[in-house]
Amino acid sequence: MKRRDFLKKAGIGVAATAAVVTAKAPAIIASPKYNWKMCTTWPPHFPVLGEGADLLAKWIEELSDGRIKIQVYGGGELIPPLGVFDAVKSGQVEMGHGAAYYWAGKHPATQFFAAVPFGMNPQQLNAWFYGGDGIKLWEELYAQFNLVPFPTGNTGVQMAGWFRKEIKSINDLKGLKMRIPGLGGKVLAKAGGSAVLLAGGEIYTGLDRGVIDATEWVGPYHDYLMGFQKITKNYYYPGWHEPGTCLESFVNKQKFDALPKDLQGIIRTAAMKSNIWMLSEFEAKNQTYLEKLTKESGVKLLRLPDDVLKTLHKLSIETLDEIAAADPFSKKVLDNYRAFHKNIQKWYKTTEDALYYSESLQF
Amino acid sequence: MKRRDFLKKAGIGVAATAAVVTAKAPAIIASPKYNWKMCTTWPPHFPVLGEGADLLAKWIEELSDGRIKIQVYGGGELIPPLGVFDAVKSGQVEMGHGAAYYWAGKHPATQFFAAVPFGMNPQQLNAWFYGGDGIKLWEELYAQFNLVPFPTGNTGVQMAGWFRKEIKSINDLKGLKMRIPGLGGKVLAKAGGSAVLLAGGEIYTGLDRGVIDATEWVGPYHDYLMGFQKITKNYYYPGWHEPGTCLESFVNKQKFDALPKDLQGIIRTAAMKSNIWMLSEFEAKNQTYLEKLTKESGVKLLRLPDDVLKTLHKLSIETLDEIAAADPFSKKVLDNYRAFHKNIQKWYKTTEDALYYSESLQF
Repeated sequence: MKRRDFLKKAGIGVAATAAVVTAKAPAIIASPKYNWKMCTTWPPHFPVLGEGADLLAKWIEELSDGRIKIQVYGGGELIPPLGVFDAVKSGQVEMGHGAAYYWAGKHPATQFFAAVPFGMNPQQLNAWFYGGDGIKLWEELYAQFNLVPFPTGNTGVQMAGWFRKEIKSINDLKGLKMRIPGLGGKVLAKAGGSAVLLAGGEIYTGLDRGVIDATEWVGPYHDYLMGFQKITKNYYYPGWHEPGTCLESFVNKQKFDALPKDLQGIIRTAAMKSNIWMLSEFEAKNQTYLEKLTKESGVKLLRLPDDVLKTLHKLSIETLDEIAAADPFSKKVLDNYRAFHKNIQKWYKTTEDALYYSESLQF
Repeated sequence: MKRRDFLKKAGIGVAATAAVVTAKAPAIIASPKYNWKMCTTWPPHFPVLGEGADLLAKWIEELSDGRIKIQVYGGGELIPPLGVFDAVKSGQVEMGHGAAYYWAGKHPATQFFAAVPFGMNPQQLNAWFYGGDGIKLWEELYAQFNLVPFPTGNTGVQMAGWFRKEIKSINDLKGLKMRIPGLGGKVLAKAGGSAVLLAGGEIYTGLDRGVIDATEWVGPYHDYLMGFQKITKNYYYPGWHEPGTCLESFVNKQKFDALPKDLQGIIRTAAMKSNIWMLSEFEAKNQTYLEKLTKESGVKLLRLPDDVLKTLHKLSIETLDEIAAADPFSKKVLDNYRAFHKNIQKWYKTTEDALYYSESLQF
């Protein structure tokens, strides 16, 4: 290929070259522009979660001074919610936004990067990601699928969910049809319930019409927006299955590798901003909305009985052990996760626990 | 002024203009470059804290593709550690890095943005900053000093410190000469001790030679690097005075306002990255170093007796109330902080507390 043809094909052209040659002022840069598509697993502009995707695109555009423009599509607008992983893998779209446990069917280890029952809280999980091996392992896993992942949000500790009847013993979970995804769903199945998969937009109707007996969703702020409190006789419980669920974004690996270093850094850093922004949104609002639910809507807030929690804990460990036994990479991730959790949990017991959770020392 | 003279004076020149005219490729940008100085309150390249300043400068340079270059100076290299606030205020240097409670002499309310005894943990504090009014109030305060502040790191919960003698009652704090800054120091003084101010580099010698009886510093990881364990007969206690100390960076307001929007965003976002990065570094390493201290160095890890903690708690509330009573802006910040803390702490009690701190449910 002749040089002139190469320049044409490369889409850089003579003008840019001329600019570089004639320009004497510093920092005259011929920057390529990128027009990307981000497909999400959320309904369009869904509060916090979908808004997080919208904001992520906005931040990347602002930080790059318009060099990356990302058009965000809600689930189903361009790609079905659960088709996002494959669409980004194949390069059909450049970027995706969701939660890693949606891809358990692609690889069981994906689930460990979203939420582990009785696992790490958000602050601990972030320490694993940014100060431990978390992101490294996640990148290793997603590289198999031609993707580069980023932690991009956190819901904080989730509520165990909404129940029509009070849970008095583990037997009350037997036969229960509950909407609950990920590892929590597998644990419920072990307890004799059946985990039903319903997309976010279908839960309210499913619960109202008795298609499901119970559902979990996120926490008081988001659950309130979903309107579950309008369904009468609800019992609401603090959770165990998702102690700080991490949301993700991911980019097609070739597309990411082809970016200039500064734009790669801008995407990574904007995702990190989204991670802490989303958690802060939920944390700042949850208690206020919990009080709205209990005081204005008559929702009954109860604790799961200790023996129910203990049984769920035992079944959670069994579930995790089985996944690790069946797949070497899952074992590698789980071993790393557990060792980190055990270590950091000791630190919490010694310090935060002692300081914050003493009834007498409330501020 | 003639147009040609104006162009010359503006330092843009004919070459850049020509480039804009001849270039047809998109995004040929004539971007001004900025060479800034950042002065820190830390010894040069001090582990984690000074490294955090070094990394912040590196990240800003990378994300801006070299448009902002920041030369970092350790405390005393260009400006004395506690002269940084004034040097940035006056525009002598563009940027500073430290902790807001160092500037209590400038305004008492600064302290609330670093650490409040028995106050919020890092996750809660970040929720106040990013999801509540925290940053807004901080910006309002620093605007009085011609500065724009950013949360830029967090040590996590700090240890109460190193003591030569066991603390058996509040009386053991009477007459104690202890290195302890900020509000914690004021509380110690109320308990009959005397708070000594020593820069980081002077503490080891001060403790070794008996100039001080006790010191606090950060947490196991950083304290280990400081070498306090080499001083014999140390008692080491989990803390109460700094439940998650926020570090800061700040920029001269005119310099910041004059930046293009994308570079303003890059500084803000890089600081946010540093906030979560630093916390994750400390959190990931603290327990490992705590075990080194206790198992390899024979440090005695004890809990402060409950009545000592209760008295310190009571004195902390008095200290805060006195500051608020003396200054309306401090009252405004403290009222906001307390209301947010009270609210979010209820959420923790209902959820994280119930989930994580049950002895029987360790993962």
